[in-house]
Amino acid sequence: MNAYDELPQTPANYAPLSPISFLQRAASVHPERTAIIHGELRRTWAQTDERCRRLASALQKHGIGRGDTVAVMAPNVPELYEAHFGVLMAGAVLNALNVRLESETLAYIFDHGEAKVLLSDREFSAVIREALELSEQNPLVIDIDDPLAESGDLLGEMDYEALLAQGDPAFEAILPEDDWQSVTLNYTSGTTGRPKGVVYHSRGAYLLAVGNVLAWELPHHPTYLWTLPMFHCNGWCYTWGVTAIGGTHVCLRKFDPAHVFTLLQEHRVSHLCGAPIILNALANAPEAAGLRFEQRIRIATGGAAPPSQVIAAMEPMNFEVMHLYGLTESYGPATLCEWQSEWNGLDLNGRAAKTARQGVIYPSLRDAQVLDQESGQPVPTDGATIGEIVLRGSTIMKGYHANPSATEDAFAGGWYHTGDLAVMHPDGYLEVKDRSKDIIISGGENISSLEVEEALYKHPAVLEAAVVARPDEKWGETPCAFVTLKPGQSTTEEGLVAFCHDHLAHFKCPRTVIFAELPKTSTGKIQKHVLRGQAQAL
Amino acid sequence: MNAYDELPQTPANYAPLSPISFLQRAASVHPERTAIIHGELRRTWAQTDERCRRLASALQKHGIGRGDTVAVMAPNVPELYEAHFGVLMAGAVLNALNVRLESETLAYIFDHGEAKVLLSDREFSAVIREALELSEQNPLVIDIDDPLAESGDLLGEMDYEALLAQGDPAFEAILPEDDWQSVTLNYTSGTTGRPKGVVYHSRGAYLLAVGNVLAWELPHHPTYLWTLPMFHCNGWCYTWGVTAIGGTHVCLRKFDPAHVFTLLQEHRVSHLCGAPIILNALANAPEAAGLRFEQRIRIATGGAAPPSQVIAAMEPMNFEVMHLYGLTESYGPATLCEWQSEWNGLDLNGRAAKTARQGVIYPSLRDAQVLDQESGQPVPTDGATIGEIVLRGSTIMKGYHANPSATEDAFAGGWYHTGDLAVMHPDGYLEVKDRSKDIIISGGENISSLEVEEALYKHPAVLEAAVVARPDEKWGETPCAFVTLKPGQSTTEEGLVAFCHDHLAHFKCPRTVIFAELPKTSTGKIQKHVLRGQAQAL
Repeated sequence: MNAYDELPQTPANYAPLSPISFLQRAASVHPERTAIIHGELRRTWAQTDERCRRLASALQKHGIGRGDTVAVMAPNVPELYEAHFGVLMAGAVLNALNVRLESETLAYIFDHGEAKVLLSDREFSAVIREALELSEQNPLVIDIDDPLAESGDLLGEMDYEALLAQGDPAFEAILPEDDWQSVTLNYTSGTTGRPKGVVYHSRGAYLLAVGNVLAWELPHHPTYLWTLPMFHCNGWCYTWGVTAIGGTHVCLRKFDPAHVFTLLQEHRVSHLCGAPIILNALANAPEAAGLRFEQRIRIATGGAAPPSQVIAAMEPMNFEVMHLYGLTESYGPATLCEWQSEWNGLDLNGRAAKTARQGVIYPSLRDAQVLDQESGQPVPTDGATIGEIVLRGSTIMKGYHANPSATEDAFAGGWYHTGDLAVMHPDGYLEVKDRSKDIIISGGENISSLEVEEALYKHPAVLEAAVVARPDEKWGETPCAFVTLKPGQSTTEEGLVAFCHDHLAHFKCPRTVIFAELPKTSTGKIQKHVLRGQAQAL
Repeated sequence: MNAYDELPQTPANYAPLSPISFLQRAASVHPERTAIIHGELRRTWAQTDERCRRLASALQKHGIGRGDTVAVMAPNVPELYEAHFGVLMAGAVLNALNVRLESETLAYIFDHGEAKVLLSDREFSAVIREALELSEQNPLVIDIDDPLAESGDLLGEMDYEALLAQGDPAFEAILPEDDWQSVTLNYTSGTTGRPKGVVYHSRGAYLLAVGNVLAWELPHHPTYLWTLPMFHCNGWCYTWGVTAIGGTHVCLRKFDPAHVFTLLQEHRVSHLCGAPIILNALANAPEAAGLRFEQRIRIATGGAAPPSQVIAAMEPMNFEVMHLYGLTESYGPATLCEWQSEWNGLDLNGRAAKTARQGVIYPSLRDAQVLDQESGQPVPTDGATIGEIVLRGSTIMKGYHANPSATEDAFAGGWYHTGDLAVMHPDGYLEVKDRSKDIIISGGENISSLEVEEALYKHPAVLEAAVVARPDEKWGETPCAFVTLKPGQSTTEEGLVAFCHDHLAHFKCPRTVIFAELPKTSTGKIQKHVLRGQAQAL
C-alpha cells in the first residue's frame, strides 16, 4: 500500500463501460444524421434515441429490470436494432433469437432463458405460436408489425408502436453498475444436444464494438448494410460498433443478391458483413456480371475462408474482403487476417492464400494461441503442426447461462477452448484446419476436411463442397465428399477424384463423392454432422 | 441475484485494460514495420518491443516494481517513448518531467513523487545536477546519451544503453492486476503554489488511447510527428494511441519550423499535435510561403482556439486542423470540435468560427456539461450563459498524488471541476470563454478575456495578445491588453483600442494596451498570472 493506492474510484473518474454510451453520443453530437434506413423509412439519431428511451421506459413499466430477459424474434428490422439499446437501457438482458429455429428449440430457449417479454415479427407468428404453446414461460408478447413483412398475423398483447407509446421519451438510461453486468444472451446453434446460452457482459460489448472500429479502420459515418443477422453475436457487435462512430444502419429483412446490389448503389453502402455463403451468392449472382460500384465496399466474412474464386469475382466489383474468425463465445471476431503491405505485390492466388488464413489477434482480445492438445504448449510456427485455438480476454463470454459445468469446461486452464484446430504460420498468422470433430483420421494420418474442400472448390464446376469422415474397415476413416455443382455445369465422381489427385496427397483424396444439395444451419453453415450421419449409413 | 450473476470473472474472460497490450500486438502483428524514427535511426516494432522488455527487466533488477516512480527528464527521444511501455511493464509508474522546469521545482517533484530512478537526457544535466542537490531523494540516475543532443555532460551511474544491456530481452511484462492500477504521474505546471501530481490509471490510459483513434478516425499505420511534448499528458496519450494501430513515431528533440517542414516531407507525416503556438509558428514561418504538402496532414491543437488566420494560412499547405480541449486531469483531450458535414459549405471565417469552439464530448469520456456555478444545473444552450465545464468518466485522473484535499475538491459532487468557464451553443457545442480566474468583472459585467483577445488577433499587426483584469476605482476592473506585434509591423495603443471598438461592445474594449514580449509557461501557455501582477502594478 502506497500513495498510489490511496485514490479511490468516484463517480467523477470511473464509469462502467457500456455500449449505451455510443447511442447517447450519436444522439447528442449528430442528432439530425440518418441513423436507420429501412425500405422508405428514415430515422435520425435523435429519433432513434427517443425510441430506445421509450422502449426502456415501457419495459420498466411492465416490470422489466436488471437480470430480466427480453427475447426478440425478428430479422434485421429497426425494432431489433432498437432492442440492442432499449433493452439494455432498462437494465435488462437482450436475447435475440435465430429466426430459422423450429418451435421445440424456441420453446426450450424461452424456458431456459426465462423470457419475460417477447418481441415477435409477424412473419414468424406461426412458429412462435407453436413455441409458446410448448413453453412453460408466459412472456408478454409484443408484435413487430413491419409493413415490409410479407406474411403472418399478429398474436401479441399489443404491437411494438403501442408499447413505445407507453414509454417516456425522456427516460434516463439505467447504466450498468459495473462492467460485468450481463447485457445479452445468445444461444449457439449447437450441432448436437441442447443449444447453450452464451452470456455477454457490458465490458465485452463495449470493447468489441471499439475493436471493430480499430480492426476495420472504420471512418466516421460509414453506411453499413445488415446482411449479417443481428441475432448472430449481436451482429458481431456492429450493432454497437457502427453506432459508436455515428454510422447509418441499412436494415434488411432477407438476403437477395439483386436487392442487395440495389441497396449498395442507392445508399452508397461502405461496409457489410456476412458468412462466405453471402459472398458466394453475391459473386455468382447473374446481376454481378459487369457490375462495378463507384464506392469501395468493404466486406467482412467469417465462419470459413473465402475461396480465391470468390475474391477474384468480387474485386472487380470494387469489394475488398476482410477475413475474420470467431465464435459466439468470443462475441464474434477473435482474429482477423490483417493486411500486410508486402502482400500488395502478390497476384490474386497469392493474395487469396494469405487472406484465406484466420490471421492474428483481434485488437480487443488479450491473447490468442494455438496450443498442442497434449502438452498445452504453443505449437511450432511451422504452418504444419496442428493444435487447438485458445483465446483469452475481455471479449470472451461471461459463461454459459445456467450451465456451470459447460462453463467450467470451456474455461479450463484459464483459456477459452474453441475446439477449432489450426496451424501457426511462420509470420504469426494462424490458419484453421478443422473443427476437432471434423478431422478425418485415415491410416493414422490426420486429414483436414477443409484442405480437401479447398481442392474441390478449385474445380470450375463446383459450387459447394463438404468433406467428412466415412468409416472404413482398412483405413479407419476415409474422406467422403458431398458436392453441389454450379447450375449448368457437370462432372463425375471419377473426374473430381482425378482432379483432387492433381492438388492433394493421395491419402487425402476423397474415396467417395456424392452429388447433393448440402444441409445448412440457420446461419448458413453446412451441417457436417448430418453429412457425417449420411456417410456412416453408406 | 439470478443466473446472470453467477458467472464469475476468470483469466479466460477478464483482462485488465492496459496500454501495454498495444505494444504487444504491434510487435506480434507488424514486427518488421518501422516503429521509431529519430534522425538517421530506424527501429522496428520487434526491436522496440525487445528494448522495452529489457528496460522493464533491468528496472526490476534494480528493485523497481509496483508503486515505484521512475522519472524521465528528456525531450521527445526514443528513450522517453520506450519508458511509456518499459516502465509500465515493470509494474512501475512513469513520471515524465517537463524539461523546461527549473531546479527547485524539479527537486520538489523528485521528493513529492519519491522518484526511485531518473532517466536524464544529457542536455539537461546542469539543471538536474542542481535539482538532485536540492532534493532529499537519491534516485538511481541513468544518462540518456542521445547523439542528437547538442550539449551537456553525463552525470549518472550508467547510460541508458548499459541499463538495457542488463535486461532480459524476453522479459514478460507485468500486467496490471486490475484496471485501476496507477501507470503515470504528471505534474501540472500550476500557475501558483506547488505543482500537483496528477495520477493516471491503466484503464484511462487504454481508453483515451482508443478514444484518440475514434476521435481522429486514425487509419492503420499513420506516421505521427512528435511536435507535442510526451511529458504533456503522456503526449495526450498518443504515445499509446499511435502504437495501438501500428503507426510510426517520428521523434523530435526540439521544435523548429524549417526542420519540421523537412520531416513532414521526408517521412510523409500524416498526423501531429501541438498547442496553437506551434500552429502559429508553422503558419508564419518564412519557409511556409508557397509550400504545399503532397499528403493531407492532420494536426490537432488544444489549449486555446486556433485563430482563423492560422487556419487560413495552413489550409493551402494541406493541413487539416482539429480542435481539442482538455487538461492534465483529463489525460489530455476531453472534448473535440467534431466536424459536421454541413460546415463544408461555409467560407473560411464561417469554418473557423465553428472550429474555434471546444466542441463535444470525446468518445472515451462519459459526460461533459457546462453547469451554472450557483445552481449546479446545465446552462441554457443559448451560446451566451456562462457556466463551468465539468467532466466525468474513465479518462479522468485517479486523483492528485498524496494530496487528498485537492482531490476531494476537484471531484466535488461527482464531477471533475475544470475551472474553465464556457457557454453551450444551441447545437450542443461548448465554447470556452475563460478560466474562472481570468474573467474580468467591469462595472458588474463579466468580460471574457478570450473574447477581447480574439478581437485583438484580428488586427493584422498582432502576433500574440493576452488580456487580464486591471484594478480600477470606478469600474472594479477594466481589460488590460498585452500585445506582441509581428516583425516589421507597427500600430499604436489608440489604433488598437479603436480597432477593438469596431469588433466589441464598448465596455469590453481594453482601457490599457502594453506592447511587450509575453511570458510563457514551459508548455507554451501565456502566463496570465504574471501579466495580472504587472497590470496591478501599473
